[in-house]
Order: sequence, then C-alpha cells, then structure tokens
Amino acid sequence: MSARRGAQIYDVLRETRPLVLNSARVVEAALRDDRVSVGMRAVLEVLAGAGTLTVPGIAQRLDLARQGVQRHVDDLGELGLVAVRANPAHRRSLLVHLTDTGTALFRRIHDDELARLDQLAADCTDDEITAAVKVLRALNREVRG
Amino acid sequence: MSARRGAQIYDVLRETRPLVLNSARVVEAALRDDRVSVGMRAVLEVLAGAGTLTVPGIAQRLDLARQGVQRHVDDLGELGLVAVRANPAHRRSLLVHLTDTGTALFRRIHDDELARLDQLAADCTDDEITAAVKVLRALNREVRG
Repeated sequence: MSARRGAQIYDVLRETRPLVLNSARVVEAALRDDRVSVGMRAVLEVLAGAGTLTVPGIAQRLDLARQGVQRHVDDLGELGLVAVRANPAHRRSLLVHLTDTGTALFRRIHDDELARLDQLAADCTDDEITAAVKVLRALNREVRG
Repeated sequence: MSARRGAQIYDVLRETRPLVLNSARVVEAALRDDRVSVGMRAVLEVLAGAGTLTVPGIAQRLDLARQGVQRHVDDLGELGLVAVRANPAHRRSLLVHLTDTGTALFRRIHDDELARLDQLAADCTDDEITAAVKVLRALNREVRG
C-alpha cells in the first residue's frame, strides 16, 4: 500500500477512456463497407459467443439500453445477419441468433481485426500485454458502481 | 507477429469499455455529496493540470463536445469552483481557471480517489501495473480513427 500505487492504478484508468473512443472509431471505419455500426458489431460478437439470446440478455451483456439493442437487432435482421424465433420460456421476448451469413461476416470482420491488432504495440513484450490483461480484469472485477 | 498476439491485444481492448463505464459510476457516487458530476470533475482535473484554458481547449483535451463543456463550466461557476476572465487573444473565447475553492476541492477529491485506488488489484504486482500503463499508452498512440 503506497500513494504511488494508487497513482499508478489511476494512470491505468486514465488511459482507458481515450482508448475506448479511439478504437471505436477505428472499428467503425473498418466496418463501413459492410453497413455495420460499432453497436451492430457488438451484438454480432455477443451472439457469436453465446449462440442464442433475448434482446434483454444482449443488452445486459453489453451494458447498453434495451431499446438501442432492439434497433441494432432490427438493422441486423434487415441485412439478413440475424434471425429471431419464438421464445418458449417467455412469449413476448424473442430469441435472437446469427444466420449463416451473420456467422461468416463476423468471422471475417474479427479475423481482419486480429490481423490489424497483431501489428500494434510492437515495443511491448508478450508478457507486458499479458500483465495488462491481468490488471484490467482485476480492476473490472473490483470496480463496481 | 502471431495470431495469438492479436488476440491478446484484443483482450486488452475488450476490458477497457466495461472498466470506463464501471469506474465512471464509482467516481460519480463518490462525487454526489459535492454536487459535482463526472463531466464537471473531468473539467476540474484538466484545469488543475493546465492552469488556464478556453472552453474549446478543454473540449479538445477531454474529447467532449464544446457545448457539454460549456455547460459544465457554467455549473462549476455557479458553485464557485471556476471563474472566467477575458481572453486577450480572442475576444469571444473566455479563459477558464480554477478558483481557490475549486483547487482545494479537486485536491481533496483526487486524494480520496487515490486512497481508494490504492486498495485495488491487490493480486497484481507493481511491475504488472507498470506494464499495463505502458501497453495502454502504446495502444493509445497507435490507435487513431
């Protein structure tokens, strides 16, 4: 325990907001040709990981408002990237899942992202990046409003 | 260069957004008694670091809309935490600076924050936290929209 440590953790937190803003812009620019927004991409990613979810389930995982997620799901449905079916457990809450086109598009988008990310932070070692992930996860577990 | 490294950097980025959202909530809860919002606190911090700035200067540093910053400055002015004076270089753009009350309040707020942050990530070493700052700074330099 030292004031210096608190200040160091503060430095970690201070870097996060600009990184979120800047990386969202880069992701957005990369998605433009696919007519997919950052929010729509986030929904694709959650569904790629979880399989099938309700709109409130997606909203909770993304910390986004339910209405915003519903709009993303509608937009993705128009592009044929997701489809919905009835929820046997809850009549008013439909189940959303990726279509084959949606699965293939997210895989391509994500492979492109990883290839670009692979080029970043060349002056940092793998161990330093591993440490960064560990620290950020610890802070995420402990920092709750 | 390996696909694994790209995936590791992706893990770093994925932790940032929830951390920004959660830490903003914690900061906000801590500020409630002082009638200061997270945005107002950010303006206090920028002024504590830079001394005197115009509203557009604050907005640029915080990556916030100018109108939002103007509102924060007005609210801070009502609490007596900032004051404005004429800008000799530009008649329409006033210079904003902290009052003595504002300086003292930000110092107290920030000392409290550092004391709380000091308790976090107890399972991470100082070296790991230093590595996290280094990685996040490298990514912030390189990730631009």
